[in-house]
Amino acid sequence: MTALQQLHTHLAEISDLNRISSIIGWDQQTYMPPGGSAARAEQSATLQKISHEMFSADETGRWLDAAAKEINGHDPDSDEARLISITRRDYEKARKVPAALVAEIARVTGQAIGIWTEARAASDWKPFSPYLGRIVELERRWAEAVGYTDRVYDALLDKYEPEMKTAQVQAVFDAIKPGLIELVKAIAAKGQAVSDEVLHREYDEQKQWNFGLEVIKRYGFDFTRGRQDRSVHPFTTSFSINDVRITTRFDQNFLSPALFGTLHETGHALYEQGFSQTLERTPLADGASLGMHESQSRMWENLVGRSLPFWKFFFPALIQFFPEQLADQTAESFYRAANKVSPSFIRVEADEVTYGLHIMLRFEMENDLLEGRVKPDDVPEAWNAKMRDFLGITPPTIKDGALQDVHWASGLIGYFPTYQLGNLISLQLWDKLNSAIPDLASQIERGEFAALLDWLRLNVHQHGRKFTSNELLHRITGEGLNPAPYFKYLKAKYSGIYGL
Amino acid sequence: MTALQQLHTHLAEISDLNRISSIIGWDQQTYMPPGGSAARAEQSATLQKISHEMFSADETGRWLDAAAKEINGHDPDSDEARLISITRRDYEKARKVPAALVAEIARVTGQAIGIWTEARAASDWKPFSPYLGRIVELERRWAEAVGYTDRVYDALLDKYEPEMKTAQVQAVFDAIKPGLIELVKAIAAKGQAVSDEVLHREYDEQKQWNFGLEVIKRYGFDFTRGRQDRSVHPFTTSFSINDVRITTRFDQNFLSPALFGTLHETGHALYEQGFSQTLERTPLADGASLGMHESQSRMWENLVGRSLPFWKFFFPALIQFFPEQLADQTAESFYRAANKVSPSFIRVEADEVTYGLHIMLRFEMENDLLEGRVKPDDVPEAWNAKMRDFLGITPPTIKDGALQDVHWASGLIGYFPTYQLGNLISLQLWDKLNSAIPDLASQIERGEFAALLDWLRLNVHQHGRKFTSNELLHRITGEGLNPAPYFKYLKAKYSGIYGL
Repeated sequence: MTALQQLHTHLAEISDLNRISSIIGWDQQTYMPPGGSAARAEQSATLQKISHEMFSADETGRWLDAAAKEINGHDPDSDEARLISITRRDYEKARKVPAALVAEIARVTGQAIGIWTEARAASDWKPFSPYLGRIVELERRWAEAVGYTDRVYDALLDKYEPEMKTAQVQAVFDAIKPGLIELVKAIAAKGQAVSDEVLHREYDEQKQWNFGLEVIKRYGFDFTRGRQDRSVHPFTTSFSINDVRITTRFDQNFLSPALFGTLHETGHALYEQGFSQTLERTPLADGASLGMHESQSRMWENLVGRSLPFWKFFFPALIQFFPEQLADQTAESFYRAANKVSPSFIRVEADEVTYGLHIMLRFEMENDLLEGRVKPDDVPEAWNAKMRDFLGITPPTIKDGALQDVHWASGLIGYFPTYQLGNLISLQLWDKLNSAIPDLASQIERGEFAALLDWLRLNVHQHGRKFTSNELLHRITGEGLNPAPYFKYLKAKYSGIYGL
Repeated sequence: MTALQQLHTHLAEISDLNRISSIIGWDQQTYMPPGGSAARAEQSATLQKISHEMFSADETGRWLDAAAKEINGHDPDSDEARLISITRRDYEKARKVPAALVAEIARVTGQAIGIWTEARAASDWKPFSPYLGRIVELERRWAEAVGYTDRVYDALLDKYEPEMKTAQVQAVFDAIKPGLIELVKAIAAKGQAVSDEVLHREYDEQKQWNFGLEVIKRYGFDFTRGRQDRSVHPFTTSFSINDVRITTRFDQNFLSPALFGTLHETGHALYEQGFSQTLERTPLADGASLGMHESQSRMWENLVGRSLPFWKFFFPALIQFFPEQLADQTAESFYRAANKVSPSFIRVEADEVTYGLHIMLRFEMENDLLEGRVKPDDVPEAWNAKMRDFLGITPPTIKDGALQDVHWASGLIGYFPTYQLGNLISLQLWDKLNSAIPDLASQIERGEFAALLDWLRLNVHQHGRKFTSNELLHRITGEGLNPAPYFKYLKAKYSGIYGL
């Protein structure tokens, strides 16, 4: 066997273990009876420990070195060259972080999630504050261990958005913030121009399920290589390029969670089903970054699923499922309802326009915490001040403010910006798509998604993790992150809906 | 850490991996889309390879030695002492079999299952015959590697029924064969005294599902520590003592597969849910043997589920689900239908009386093959001759004869007898149970199963794999395997039904 073959075999086995982690995690969130949770936690920990030991072993490094020599002179963008360079980067990071620090983070966040759950229920910041302090400190140590050149946040962001720098994110966020705040104000001034009351009528769950399936089959979700199940928190996970699972949830009195949730997860799933088969059982069978991943989910949820052409095609199907509930509606009225904008406290319930401001708030807060400008005890007040600045509203309780998200308790600092990067990237791609497929809107209005999916497969999906999101953006658009298309889209769409 | 603690930690991680193998196998048979199969096979192989490497490692032996010294003087029946002695036995077997032989068996049986599937569809023995020859040869080499003192079959039987000897099985099978053949003939002479036509009416699947759940909740299946799903071939599997999964299947025009299948799997599941919690994450959290396991499934399926007291209680519930289909039935008539006896070709469809003869045929055939008295090419003819001797019928095709079971293609030689051992053991336990709980039949007639389950938990379930089936039988009944209660039961029950 060549060193490259040895490396491939080794990484394939590690990939198997990581995929298996996804399988047991999926079962945990879909079907596992409550009695299974203690054993499942042990099984998950054992699997991750073995996977980490295998990956960070000396032999991985030796095979990487030897394989790099073997393919010296190959195209640096070939699967092999990229496999080696990206695995080398992962390997060096894995070797830099002391096992004791990883264990300490797992231990503290394990406790912190329980504390956060209780603190949130009681809307009381005090018990959670010291845990946030410890987590910020541990994440800072993590950042010091792997290293960074400019901002401590760079090291954390890099976990989710490889090679993206804080300064780059800061620049694009700063560029859109004033305009977004202004847009929100302008829409608020139009008050009750749009009502979403129709979304809150009573909708049978099984019919919601069936309508969702009808849409995502048309989108191109391949049910011979995936399936949908129910879970409390919707998610997408993959056990292979050819076995991609999505989940959804239902609210009998609110159509959006299942409908737009299913479209969102399908966007993630189409990405995962679209990786080149040559990447199976390699570390490259993954998204370029969480931001790039989110660009796919947001595109199929919002740019497609909340568009007027989409509803011109699908509203007649939806009304067949719910003739009584929708008797007073048209495609246009339903489209407007699905796009109501209103400043609100909870990020996950936010509309397309205000959503970005929720993210920017968190991005600023995380940097303030890491760089010592805000102390953990002062977070709720700082949070509320930003909510007033950004959205003009003050959370009535801490539960509606700084305690709403589980991310920090889970140790996920540096993760939030990827949600908004996804929004920005989705519009950069959307601009290119509309140039490449000039009649895209008409195709959507006819329920045709094949050209759209083909373009994404060719330009984004097939590459998996071979390129970073910045590299992919440069290959596709000729430039890096650019917030202009996003802002232009929001302004045009919501000027239309609200008559600004 | 003491050596015993180190051993525990090591075995717990191996146990985690083996449980995880069960999880991914369960998903494969319940929810996996077809596209997932190639990756799943790799994942399964990787997991088994790592588990085997960890278990057969030198350090396992060292910790076993050191831990044995540490607990020197302890009660030899304590969890610790048994953990060490049973693990030592497994370890020595695992070390004796060359990895190359294991890989060769996996490779050949992997091919053989495909060949068998096609051969069975074509009812053509010829393509499968050479594969059976190779599998018999490989299993013989396996037996030579692990060693045996008397019969080559001892080594194979030991995989499924630890420490049970071929001679012991032979003796009990020989003891009942003539009587069973005679009983079948006597029943056949009564011809059409019993009809099972009622079982073949049309029964809605969801109602079958609901009735089955009602029964097994009463049996004591703990749904906070388990669940039921659908699969093509029903099975029971455990991811923890506190997460036991059963599956079932439905035939709209035949009530038995779902109903009695669910009761059968629940018997297995009650065993697995009943292991002492102290055995979690140890190799002792398993059945004593496949025979002991089958004794539990057969007991809840047949001794309970096909009894008149059972139907006196549950028929009124069943008729509520199916008032039209069962309008012409009583508990008694339904009981008779559920116990129709008739010689037939297919083992899995056989009734309580003829079933044992199907097993004895296979037991004799396996020994004839291993000891060279029958050549693979001659199996179909030898099979048919035995069918005539035992059941008085000749399979019209090889598909109805020697090609019906997948076991040999899968390398499972020595496995079949455990089905019949389960029947024998279930009746030995049942005799003891009826002495311990004199009004057991009345309890069943009132739908009460708690005393029955408690007795099984105390005497069988809690011990897991701490004792062999022979040891358990001695502890409970004061003797080893004894076919008398089984034969007495069949004779009494079917004399009643058929008026012999």
